[in-house]
Amino acid sequence: MGRRPDMERIEEVADLRRVLAPVRADGRRIGLVPTMGALHRGHLSHVPLLLAHADLVVMSVFVNPLQFGPGEDFERYPRSLEDDAKLAEEAGVDLLFCPQVTTLYPPGSETLVELPDLSSQLEGAVRPTHFRGVATVVAKLLNIVRPDLASFGQKDLQQLLVVRRLVSDLHFDVQILAVPTAREPDGLALSSRNAYLGADDRREAAALNRACRAGFDAVAAGERAASRVEAVMAEVLNGFPRVRPDYAVVRRLDDLKPMTVVSGRAAVLVAARVGSTRLLDNLVMDVTPDGVREIRG
Amino acid sequence: MGRRPDMERIEEVADLRRVLAPVRADGRRIGLVPTMGALHRGHLSHVPLLLAHADLVVMSVFVNPLQFGPGEDFERYPRSLEDDAKLAEEAGVDLLFCPQVTTLYPPGSETLVELPDLSSQLEGAVRPTHFRGVATVVAKLLNIVRPDLASFGQKDLQQLLVVRRLVSDLHFDVQILAVPTAREPDGLALSSRNAYLGADDRREAAALNRACRAGFDAVAAGERAASRVEAVMAEVLNGFPRVRPDYAVVRRLDDLKPMTVVSGRAAVLVAARVGSTRLLDNLVMDVTPDGVREIRG
Repeated sequence: MGRRPDMERIEEVADLRRVLAPVRADGRRIGLVPTMGALHRGHLSHVPLLLAHADLVVMSVFVNPLQFGPGEDFERYPRSLEDDAKLAEEAGVDLLFCPQVTTLYPPGSETLVELPDLSSQLEGAVRPTHFRGVATVVAKLLNIVRPDLASFGQKDLQQLLVVRRLVSDLHFDVQILAVPTAREPDGLALSSRNAYLGADDRREAAALNRACRAGFDAVAAGERAASRVEAVMAEVLNGFPRVRPDYAVVRRLDDLKPMTVVSGRAAVLVAARVGSTRLLDNLVMDVTPDGVREIRG
Repeated sequence: MGRRPDMERIEEVADLRRVLAPVRADGRRIGLVPTMGALHRGHLSHVPLLLAHADLVVMSVFVNPLQFGPGEDFERYPRSLEDDAKLAEEAGVDLLFCPQVTTLYPPGSETLVELPDLSSQLEGAVRPTHFRGVATVVAKLLNIVRPDLASFGQKDLQQLLVVRRLVSDLHFDVQILAVPTAREPDGLALSSRNAYLGADDRREAAALNRACRAGFDAVAAGERAASRVEAVMAEVLNGFPRVRPDYAVVRRLDDLKPMTVVSGRAAVLVAARVGSTRLLDNLVMDVTPDGVREIRG
């Protein structure tokens, strides 16, 4: 990594803009990875993917209070900025943007970005203000960094779709890169919240991926009735006593609306509590008359 | 005006971006005047003010359906693109951006920008979805044009405050320029909706400015009780039988909240129907122990 200078750590919007202005003036392309910190291999995998299209990578680390509902885990969400900074620098991040809450939400600020339809499905039904929080902070980060491209993990599939919709609707001039889900050997999708899992919960946490995989396999084997695909997924989850599903469904990819017959671009999605930890997983597929293909990223 | 090439008229986002990219790459500054067309001297006065700070002026002409409520005048709002284009070119506009409704609101788009607090006051109380429509279209226009500065008329004072709040909250990197209200000789604030006024209504329409002026004069003469300032304004409006006020108030400038004692930066604001036409006016002032000063722009 000798060619890259040391990573710079920046807290203030004006400082970030000052550093990025000459980069932009030189015609160099800027990539952004928005994170809430507690970095794992999944987050770090964004960096080389962005560097294939960008000359400089900004990673933001910000635990966004607006996307947590009352009684959710905002207070105890893992924060590890020193470790994050080391990992980010090793991964090739050029600038770490880690603003204070009052920088992104100063007293008197009130503007909210809402996607009433996409936000009412699935995660939005369980967490009614979550995607408003995501959309609002993403709009702020895109305006602050003005990246040429920004990456979002496929693991949070509905968030990825909200961001794509937001960018398209508000005409942000940025390309959105979807990054495939990183997994543990047993299939568990990497998530900062996996740190909450006790040993017993951890053993059962791969159930989400197994249910998604079973749903995908059913479609790949020729099942096209959404209700039967979902029954297969529910049955897998039933085999894990510590897992309490919120949903286990097959949906259209573009708007996450239900389908009767599985066809075209579709996703199987699971959300469940494992012990007291809420986890998500999904697989995305393209279902054509010629067969079924998994889409990663 | 010989130094300026002919004004270009553009409908598509991609075309506008293609024209503006080299301007931005040259380090030339871009100014934006967002309008709904039906241009009058008030709109045109933005252009020289912007050209004092910008190298190139984009004017948008877009009658934004989202800021009209049910039963309002979206359908009959005056549209006069050919006349507007002539006036804009004569005033020194470089690019006229006049998108179709489906360009800014394609099927499936749903993202809304909301300012729940500022939008609930005054105009927002009468027109509950109006400022959501304004904030959403301004966010789109700022992302499409990416201006260095953008101008808004002081005549629509609450809109100007909504835009300033939106820009600050979402960290848009743009300077907002307030443009003083242009007036007819009798004080009537210029508005595209003045075209709706019949002769009888037109004669009474200056009542709004007279009420604002009476409120301002009361404060300038030493009155500091907001209730008495508002009583003075109401009395003026009472003298005009065709004028039915929605409000006639004195408010803090920054958030338009009520005050008991008038002090600091404040505004007198009037909204009224004159016949069937709804009109607005306001004056802004700075009230200090040394005296009262009108703020224009």
